Amino acid sequence: MTALIAQRMQDCLDACLTCMRACETCAAACLAESEIDMLRECIRLDRDCADVCALTAQLMMRGSDLYAHAARLCAEACARCAQECAQHVQHDHCLVCAEACRACEAACRAVAA
Amino acid sequence: MTALIAQRMQDCLDACLTCMRACETCAAACLAESEIDMLRECIRLDRDCADVCALTAQLMMRGSDLYAHAARLCAEACARCAQECAQHVQHDHCLVCAEACRACEAACRAVAA
Amino acid sequence: MTALIAQRMQDCLDACLTCMRACETCAAACLAESEIDMLRECIRLDRDCADVCALTAQLMMRGSDLYAHAARLCAEACARCAQECAQHVQHDHCLVCAEACRACEAACRAVAA
Amino acid sequence: MTALIAQRMQDCLDACLTCMRACETCAAACLAESEIDMLRECIRLDRDCADVCALTAQLMMRGSDLYAHAARLCAEACARCAQECAQHVQHDHCLVCAEACRACEAACRAVAA
Repeated sequence: MTALIAQRMQDCLDACLTCMRACETCAAACLAESEIDMLRECIRLDRDCADVCALTAQLMMRGSDLYAHAARLCAEACARCAQECAQHVQHDHCLVCAEACRACEAACRAVAA
Repeated sequence: MTALIAQRMQDCLDACLTCMRACETCAAACLAESEIDMLRECIRLDRDCADVCALTAQLMMRGSDLYAHAARLCAEACARCAQECAQHVQHDHCLVCAEACRACEAACRAVAA
Repeated sequence: MTALIAQRMQDCLDACLTCMRACETCAAACLAESEIDMLRECIRLDRDCADVCALTAQLMMRGSDLYAHAARLCAEACARCAQECAQHVQHDHCLVCAEACRACEAACRAVAA
Repeated sequence: MTALIAQRMQDCLDACLTCMRACETCAAACLAESEIDMLRECIRLDRDCADVCALTAQLMMRGSDLYAHAARLCAEACARCAQECAQHVQHDHCLVCAEACRACEAACRAVAA
């Protein structure tokens, strides 16, 4: 493995853990918002994204050969969650989550390439 | 969702749980075999496959939109694990696992299509 | 391991997978209900319970020594989720989930004892 | 939640992620060691510990009520893994893992109290 690839995997692993946390935080906060009715999709996608980030991070920690395939799934989960979260501009937790998802999507695509 | 797709997802979910169990059983048994030296790759792939099957099953249980993407990753994990396990013909747990992985791979490909 | 304990672990493993599925199904259904406002706690507990059941099942599949400790955590997760779900008598998915949680709690307590 | 408890949970969450990574790294490295025969228990406990740390961290990220119960299970998983890893003084990855497990055990016990 070249130094460039190792660095990309390290960056991706960190991005997955940051994104997992932002998604869990966002889902928990959405469940407590008064306008929960408008946040259903956000809660749903947050959860999928958090779970996919968790697995992707764990596979990368162990140096699994599946890392590129997992990164592809993770990029998809992040893209969907970012798109939804970015619409809820009145909620900081959604905006923080959207940003973490976009950073993680980019890191995953760099690894999957 | 058509009845055909719903049936395929149901079959795939069941196959993932069966495969997850076969992989966990196989990894635990390999760790206790005297010739563990030849089973390193099997233990490694069993674990990856079990974890990917667990996530794929959980996403399907909740009706996640990511199911096809997850099934693609899962088919890849199963294919690699089946190929390795099938070589260890002297261990029943490896042969049982290889068969479960192949069935799960096929079910995942049907869902991902 | 005596036959009785082995049977209890098998029953518990099956109960965990059934409960995990009921919780995921219930959470997804709650997220689509018109009165989602009253189902916040249910969605939250469903998720915790599903994740704890998933880990407990996976540890049991591999014959982990931690099974009794995991079963204790799982019984607690199930008890809380059952109590909440049982209040939403107008939703079949909540009642199904409450029943699965109670069965899993009992199976976990038998294993943890 | 008092500031002290919040700080303890934050420390525990960080310790869980560090421990999860050390366990995954150690298990992967053990699987590649020439004397794998002596590392069976280490591989087994590493895996259990990594998975329990992952769940505990995720529950804490979402502010789950189950955090103290999960921390209790996690402390147990860490204690067992630390005891095994500490015996393999010739392997840096085992010693690093033993230290991460002990730190995580302490952080979990502080949270569970």
